[in-house]
Amino acid sequence: MNNMLETIFPNWTQGERFRVTYRIANTGAAARQIAEDICLEQTVEVTRSVIPAEPIGSWILGRIESLEETFNASSEAVISYAEEITAWELPQLLNVILGNSSLTPGVRVEKVQLSPKILAAFKGPRFGITGLRHLIGAPTRPILATAIKPMGLTASALAKKAYAMALGGLDIIKDDHGLSNQPFGLYAERIARVSEAVRKANSETGGNTLYLSNVTGPIEQIWERARFAKSEGADGFLVCPGLVGFDTMRALADDDTLALPILSHPSLLGAFVASPDHGIAHGPLFGLIARLAGADASIFTNYGGRFSFSISECRSIATDCLAPLGKLATIFPVPAGGMTLEKIPDLHATYGTNVMYLIGGALMAHSPDLVANCQLFRELVEQEIKK
Amino acid sequence: MNNMLETIFPNWTQGERFRVTYRIANTGAAARQIAEDICLEQTVEVTRSVIPAEPIGSWILGRIESLEETFNASSEAVISYAEEITAWELPQLLNVILGNSSLTPGVRVEKVQLSPKILAAFKGPRFGITGLRHLIGAPTRPILATAIKPMGLTASALAKKAYAMALGGLDIIKDDHGLSNQPFGLYAERIARVSEAVRKANSETGGNTLYLSNVTGPIEQIWERARFAKSEGADGFLVCPGLVGFDTMRALADDDTLALPILSHPSLLGAFVASPDHGIAHGPLFGLIARLAGADASIFTNYGGRFSFSISECRSIATDCLAPLGKLATIFPVPAGGMTLEKIPDLHATYGTNVMYLIGGALMAHSPDLVANCQLFRELVEQEIKK
Repeated sequence: MNNMLETIFPNWTQGERFRVTYRIANTGAAARQIAEDICLEQTVEVTRSVIPAEPIGSWILGRIESLEETFNASSEAVISYAEEITAWELPQLLNVILGNSSLTPGVRVEKVQLSPKILAAFKGPRFGITGLRHLIGAPTRPILATAIKPMGLTASALAKKAYAMALGGLDIIKDDHGLSNQPFGLYAERIARVSEAVRKANSETGGNTLYLSNVTGPIEQIWERARFAKSEGADGFLVCPGLVGFDTMRALADDDTLALPILSHPSLLGAFVASPDHGIAHGPLFGLIARLAGADASIFTNYGGRFSFSISECRSIATDCLAPLGKLATIFPVPAGGMTLEKIPDLHATYGTNVMYLIGGALMAHSPDLVANCQLFRELVEQEIKK
Repeated sequence: MNNMLETIFPNWTQGERFRVTYRIANTGAAARQIAEDICLEQTVEVTRSVIPAEPIGSWILGRIESLEETFNASSEAVISYAEEITAWELPQLLNVILGNSSLTPGVRVEKVQLSPKILAAFKGPRFGITGLRHLIGAPTRPILATAIKPMGLTASALAKKAYAMALGGLDIIKDDHGLSNQPFGLYAERIARVSEAVRKANSETGGNTLYLSNVTGPIEQIWERARFAKSEGADGFLVCPGLVGFDTMRALADDDTLALPILSHPSLLGAFVASPDHGIAHGPLFGLIARLAGADASIFTNYGGRFSFSISECRSIATDCLAPLGKLATIFPVPAGGMTLEKIPDLHATYGTNVMYLIGGALMAHSPDLVANCQLFRELVEQEIKK
């Protein structure tokens, strides 16, 4: 293999390294072996015997920066990678972070520290917290969001709901993420009717309620749907990166011909966070990766509801949504899933004001008067911030 | 909510239902509650109190067809869904199958039984086993595949390897899935050089070695890369659906202007199969879903290597690759990951002849003579099928 030495790109100037912290469900020599395997698996994918020490072994190969035993018979390994191997592309960045090692038991991404040049390669959220607050006209308070549903209603029935929700003073109305282009609820009719209904309510209230249409769908149709929604007056998009890829969301956010806010939905992403022993921790997944992928707000399932996230996991998501990240905008954490009006005081204590509350089904179930339910939602939040 | 009844699409003829079998890590009343939650969560996402019994409750809502206690304090629930709610789209089909319930602990998809109309909505693999065998000129034997690597080599160094591999008689040479468009290994140069090298070897040997370029990358560039590869004479594509979405792979397979075979790579998909308690079982994920998404061959990590799959999990993948599935072509199961030449007799006993063996690093490490290593790989397989 020595003749390979001469064939390596000769005059490359090496850049910085970025770091990924892995939790390894093992200790001692076994943990070190797994960490060394990660260094290979995420980069060269061959055994050390067939790679030239310079420069592949010293540069392209992952490098263990630290390895410490932690708790629960686990270790924490910080592994650094050459920033260039990401090709400055989101799919390849995700591939380097976990890719093949997702198939290794007992390996979980706990933290990702990107280099300045990687961060500069991503535009990130187009609006973020500041931009969304400006669009809504709500400079400091929590943002109130809901969803039109259930699947099976006609477009006009959904539009009636949206109209009531906008009259009731909510800031964001999104399609339920299961509303696609079903034969009984076609996309075009829904978007036209609901956009019109929200516009009508805004003209009556003087409000700025935004309608976000679900553009998750076949890849050939996503941009068509997004352009149609924009042309009909929809104000932004709901995207499920677990269903269509984080990079599809990134491309929608980057598209200057669309230039509308994006709300990220966690459908199918639960597999990554279901176990403390593998996948990707909540903060990096719903915070950092969602921001790199251009989400202006990131939905996750709140603690205490019908899902499994703990309060500390939810806090870690909010932290990663709001933490400094190069020049990338901060984004709204969006607790959702089994949220009820009764929880607002507790939610306020946990999340403060830089949050978007998404209450869906419970807002419909609270009483038969949807306008009043939405007004109550808003009043309860306003009471909390006055306390 | 009664006034909603009149607003539901009035004259819709209901089609068939399709079935998903979930393993629920619970028993008795708790398991039933989880199964009932799945019925709501995957469809209407509101409580039963706010949905009209007819037709949403009886049609759109998921329905428990059976619920039985199994073993390990678990239950198996078969839940049926109206086929129309998939909108005949892959992202929405995946959303109905697991979507939000991926965020519920202790829920795993074990089996998916699609309706004829859903199956007819997908073209599936363009080549499949029969088509790939025809391209390669190998009507019955196992197909031999390898990868060019490691990342960090120049295009000409990778081309030299590909040339040796093709001379050695391998059928398929793919880019390592980490080879993207790194500044030290640009896509265009690699594809041009490697295509040329494989063509040269084929002209010398009279063989039909195929080169599959990795088109996984930013969504705006994937088709550009695919068209470029085709124009340079590459014979197909490697796609990582975990990085760019299953539906992106499906769209590449469906594209009549490309019309080249696709090899699916499991990067980042490990999160779905890492635990027996959540995610999606191996067979449906690497077999059925890969086929719906147009893969002609589906890579997974083989048992006994450096990954965690058991022999029965690997067999279940092969079964789902080869089982009848409407009019969709059967595809090659592709065991990979820590495969060595020594394992071929055992592999043959497990997989038989309808298999593609992917041996990467071990083929390079076996001896310094890559041509001889590839010839040995082929001879060892041929010895097995003569036995």
